[in-house]
Amino acid sequence: MSKPSIPKGTRDFSPEEMLRRNYIFDVIKKAFISHGFNQIETPSMENLSTLTGKYGEEGDRLIFKVLNRGDKFLKSLKNLNSEENSQGQMEHQLCAEGLRYDLTVPFARYVVQHQNEINFPFKRFQIQPVWRADRPQKGRYREFYQCDADIIGSNSLTNEISFIQLIDSVFKSFGIKGVAVKVNNRKILSGIAEITGQPEKIIDITVAIDKLDKIGVDLVLEELSNKGLTEESISIIKPLLDIKGDYILIISSLKNILKDSMIGLKGVEELEFVFNYFKSNPLDFVSVQLDMTLARGLNYYTGAIFEVIVDQAKVGSVSGGGRYDDLTGIFGLKDVSGIGISFGADRIYDVMLDQDVFPDFSDISTQLLVINNGEDVNELLRLSNLIRSKGVITELYPDNVKLKKQMKYANGNKIPYVLFVTEENSIYSYELKNMISGEQIILDVDSIIEKLNF
Amino acid sequence: MSKPSIPKGTRDFSPEEMLRRNYIFDVIKKAFISHGFNQIETPSMENLSTLTGKYGEEGDRLIFKVLNRGDKFLKSLKNLNSEENSQGQMEHQLCAEGLRYDLTVPFARYVVQHQNEINFPFKRFQIQPVWRADRPQKGRYREFYQCDADIIGSNSLTNEISFIQLIDSVFKSFGIKGVAVKVNNRKILSGIAEITGQPEKIIDITVAIDKLDKIGVDLVLEELSNKGLTEESISIIKPLLDIKGDYILIISSLKNILKDSMIGLKGVEELEFVFNYFKSNPLDFVSVQLDMTLARGLNYYTGAIFEVIVDQAKVGSVSGGGRYDDLTGIFGLKDVSGIGISFGADRIYDVMLDQDVFPDFSDISTQLLVINNGEDVNELLRLSNLIRSKGVITELYPDNVKLKKQMKYANGNKIPYVLFVTEENSIYSYELKNMISGEQIILDVDSIIEKLNF
Repeated sequence: MSKPSIPKGTRDFSPEEMLRRNYIFDVIKKAFISHGFNQIETPSMENLSTLTGKYGEEGDRLIFKVLNRGDKFLKSLKNLNSEENSQGQMEHQLCAEGLRYDLTVPFARYVVQHQNEINFPFKRFQIQPVWRADRPQKGRYREFYQCDADIIGSNSLTNEISFIQLIDSVFKSFGIKGVAVKVNNRKILSGIAEITGQPEKIIDITVAIDKLDKIGVDLVLEELSNKGLTEESISIIKPLLDIKGDYILIISSLKNILKDSMIGLKGVEELEFVFNYFKSNPLDFVSVQLDMTLARGLNYYTGAIFEVIVDQAKVGSVSGGGRYDDLTGIFGLKDVSGIGISFGADRIYDVMLDQDVFPDFSDISTQLLVINNGEDVNELLRLSNLIRSKGVITELYPDNVKLKKQMKYANGNKIPYVLFVTEENSIYSYELKNMISGEQIILDVDSIIEKLNF
Repeated sequence: MSKPSIPKGTRDFSPEEMLRRNYIFDVIKKAFISHGFNQIETPSMENLSTLTGKYGEEGDRLIFKVLNRGDKFLKSLKNLNSEENSQGQMEHQLCAEGLRYDLTVPFARYVVQHQNEINFPFKRFQIQPVWRADRPQKGRYREFYQCDADIIGSNSLTNEISFIQLIDSVFKSFGIKGVAVKVNNRKILSGIAEITGQPEKIIDITVAIDKLDKIGVDLVLEELSNKGLTEESISIIKPLLDIKGDYILIISSLKNILKDSMIGLKGVEELEFVFNYFKSNPLDFVSVQLDMTLARGLNYYTGAIFEVIVDQAKVGSVSGGGRYDDLTGIFGLKDVSGIGISFGADRIYDVMLDQDVFPDFSDISTQLLVINNGEDVNELLRLSNLIRSKGVITELYPDNVKLKKQMKYANGNKIPYVLFVTEENSIYSYELKNMISGEQIILDVDSIIEKLNF
């Protein structure tokens, strides 16, 4: 029999990894709750019609599809015609359901489906796995958790500020050092495209500007030229790439450059509102930076966009989000503005390991192992249950085996205390051993409970 | 555009349902941890070869299968031959992965795959969804959570006792009334089959005896006869069905009846050990009953079996489990004994609603809504963040809209307090309204924080 294995790109999580992962989810969840977000969950499987066409062609290919069952499968087989049907068509004939690809589309579906039960503005969070048939590589998995919060049904800029406060409190709780929130606004990118007179080039412009940090001004300009931007357009964009300094300076430059673009100026104004707030009310922990080159893909964002990065960390952004004006439009509910954020648990995990900032989990791990040494096992069971009922995480070693084996178990599981029970003339005595210091002391049961409840 | 929907047998969970579900998971998780169980997680998808053949033919059909992707899909299509291949064969050609059907088989796979990293006896728990393509009906879903704990690598009967203590503490925490743990032992069922001289009839005997409660002695005997049990066999089984009384009486009758069956007597002895313990050390909350007719399906159990039922509840058992001697044998690791338990979160949910024993969740829901009444929104944001940072779950209503709409939001979300902020001559005053009593009082910010932190 070959050794069992799991599908490529998926993971088993050991007890130690689970403690760390739960810690991350708990901190994020607590921050979401403290801001008044309410948790929902949606099914792992959605109708393929809900998922298809929402993530681009590449995304459609990466959706895991679930085979039809029973007669439906046989029927769908009959309709297959690999000569005439494309692969995508055949997949859709064989499968009516798929695994969710993110939490955003299911959320939009949820809002539209349950719109009459929802009290808007709806502040929801969701922490669930998603699946993508991407080529697995370091840090990229086929099953991974997303931790999303959204406010839908309000276009107030107070939400942008609240989300940045939320980010601050999350990373403060984690104790991750060197965290910055980069903020930009899609309307500024639209404004730039508009003033060049080549608005149809917005994607090329955005993609090129996004590379400024990595390749520098000259190569960005070269790329723009290669993509068909005219010399005049490039001469309009160039000064933007040279803007340096604090947000006040950037804002005033942008106001000048974008003076003929209504949408561009709207974007500048929105950014200004957010940054003015944080000027008067600085954050506790993370820095906020205006980054005109931030683009965040080319998806549904229409206003503020933000991304959280960690100095020195090689993992890319640990969180990101932005405002969208028509997310639920895809399911028929038009003109509902919203804003959302997503935390990347796997990347946060790696950063926390790197910075060595995970807390100690000893309060949710076994504190006491009662040694099974041949004394009346009923008495050992009773005692273990008593100590446990007083709040001490307690195990009785189940088998009466050699002490060495029981101590190996305690050490292997990092159990800090073991208890030896002995009886003489019907009187029990209890010796508690500290597994780190090696110290052994005789105590009564109440004192053991008190000591271990520290 | 048609209204969006979700696949048959799956569910969206609203914020209110999530609070209740999380509460159930948290209580179970806390009990698992207090007994020294460690959490693991396994991937949603397993290789089909891991899942197939473990749940019987019917189970194989009910596994959700995930379509191969890319070239692999095209290749598998070519090999399809619906004339010669069975449906099962074709499914396996098109799919190499499936969604897990329970947590037990993935656990066995995990233990075998990671045996060199595991410190045995291994006490693990796992709370994750499973998927079954069953026909959906009331209380039966295609995606549902299982909450499992197992101890593997120890055949000590102290584990049986610990699990019953765990059940006691879980249902005590829930406050569910009328809970009983029914206990039996598979070895007794084997013993009965053995002494009839028709051991090959063990399944028929078990199935028939299992119906005693529902159909009565006469019909059980009739069924046994219909299934080919001889008159002599039936005359041996009949006295078993008449045994009434407390466990001491049942045990002594069984010892007598099974005196010629080694395995039967072993089963009786194991039960006696467990029941003697609880006679001297009664449980706090639930009752323990010896139920000779308990069978728990026809799967991998080999020793103690137990099932938890709730008086008056129409949901069937809310928890169950038992001992198995060769779970990991299917993956090549032989002779490792274990015992496991599973809690049925959906059924517990229904019972708790029926008995009206869910707690109040006000400490994890928004406590204060700051009204957005046109005062300086930066000041409202700052204030909201300050109060929140002191431990009060606080929201600022994001938009400056009519008070009526903001109050409707507070009422709809059952927010107990709202705060009105007003400014006169640069001095702010704060009026706190209790949304239940209607009382309004003017307080300073510190007093508001103190009051809401009760």
